[in-house]
Amino acid sequence: MVGTIGSVRSAPLGIFDSGVGGLTVVRAVQELLPAEDILYLGDTARLPYGSKSPETIRQFADQDVGFLVKRGVKAIVVACNTATAHALPSLQEKYDLPILGVIEPGVEAVLANPDAERIGIIATRGTIDSHAYQHALALRKTGLMIHGQATPLLVPLIEENWMDHPATRQVLKTYLDPLVEKGIDTLMLACTHYPLLMPILRDLLPADVRMVDSATTCAEHLNQELARLDLLHELGGVGKLDLHLTDLSDAFEALARQFLKQSTGRIHRAVLDA
Amino acid sequence: MVGTIGSVRSAPLGIFDSGVGGLTVVRAVQELLPAEDILYLGDTARLPYGSKSPETIRQFADQDVGFLVKRGVKAIVVACNTATAHALPSLQEKYDLPILGVIEPGVEAVLANPDAERIGIIATRGTIDSHAYQHALALRKTGLMIHGQATPLLVPLIEENWMDHPATRQVLKTYLDPLVEKGIDTLMLACTHYPLLMPILRDLLPADVRMVDSATTCAEHLNQELARLDLLHELGGVGKLDLHLTDLSDAFEALARQFLKQSTGRIHRAVLDA
Repeated sequence: MVGTIGSVRSAPLGIFDSGVGGLTVVRAVQELLPAEDILYLGDTARLPYGSKSPETIRQFADQDVGFLVKRGVKAIVVACNTATAHALPSLQEKYDLPILGVIEPGVEAVLANPDAERIGIIATRGTIDSHAYQHALALRKTGLMIHGQATPLLVPLIEENWMDHPATRQVLKTYLDPLVEKGIDTLMLACTHYPLLMPILRDLLPADVRMVDSATTCAEHLNQELARLDLLHELGGVGKLDLHLTDLSDAFEALARQFLKQSTGRIHRAVLDA
Repeated sequence: MVGTIGSVRSAPLGIFDSGVGGLTVVRAVQELLPAEDILYLGDTARLPYGSKSPETIRQFADQDVGFLVKRGVKAIVVACNTATAHALPSLQEKYDLPILGVIEPGVEAVLANPDAERIGIIATRGTIDSHAYQHALALRKTGLMIHGQATPLLVPLIEENWMDHPATRQVLKTYLDPLVEKGIDTLMLACTHYPLLMPILRDLLPADVRMVDSATTCAEHLNQELARLDLLHELGGVGKLDLHLTDLSDAFEALARQFLKQSTGRIHRAVLDA
């Protein structure tokens, strides 16, 4: 039994996203848990998930998890807000290993500040329409003012690397103005792409609005859960990162490097079971 | 034999796209060939195609054609520039029915004006990087100046219905300025979404720049080809339109109505063979 648990502890973590945005979560996990091996799957052939229906997202997420489970991961992080919003409960029900999403950690990080009362959420249309954040926040604290804003153009703008373009400011202004007018004190960046927009968001938001992102909060939650379940990797050293994408192209590789802020090593093309 | 040809003539046309943009082609076909029944497939579950690799697009397009062939269409229009650019030759080789793309008709329409010498092309990155338009133009006429400009943010902006938004103008200015500086006399709108941008493009371009779009030129080419192959529907009346999408949502239905400029009727959810 001890031997079995030991080998489970040294198994890789599985992390998946619709594309390469989830690599912001990978980077945060690497910083906090450097010894862990990570198997990453990005479903670049079918991205984005954020504009598609709940049924389709559940089907895609199920295939993503199947790919990782088959490769012997010890736990899975759904590093995609839309997939967490629509598929996490059904995945947790179907599979017999720990599966963590990005929403609970984000919500806990928002409410870690007792003064947080007026919460803005920016995310894909799928995440906003699921009301997953709104529901999780309202469950934990009464009397919050919660404003969800679908921001579907941000992922395309980030993927174009137009982080500083006047059009990006214009788009952000259109999205943020209604939130600022409502006097938000906290902005939840509820998409794993959005940490790359932190500098321009900081510039556009009033100085007293606090930003919370999915990546670092998710890594901290993962650390706690692995410790609680006695699944932390026992050895020191630096774990390896194994990247799998369902579609490979130079553009996806360049984006992956940008999200990861390091070399990606060889990227494998993943074929998912139907 | 006459009976067989007769029944083939009354079979529906198959038209497919990565999403609902190809409905601009459907509308043009309905105007020109009102008696034809149309079976439309939009691969909304996996859209967009424009940012994905040639191999993946060929695989998706093959599955799309398989779906239509199985349902007995008499000819197929690839109403997607990216799929035409990467997959048309392999599809024509594999399948035993007429398959038409949007590129040849567009190129012929551009060169129908003998004064066209400096051609700008706006399209997805996949279409531009394929050099399909550049090649087809250069094959037909020597001495052309051809400038391809990838415009990957236009589809997301159109799908948000931000046709008049200042950010759309800003994005278009960034994309068009280099073409205008090069003194283009013709702009090829090489994506079936782009006809919806005609008014703002007209506003932003010098008055003497001629615009050519994929939808109307493709419908005219289809008309000629069906006549040549003796495949035109023999009866008058108004054909029916049968819409199939691989992912269904209210947002896709609303977009479909917008592209079609009419009611869509019931939309079916399509399941493609692997």
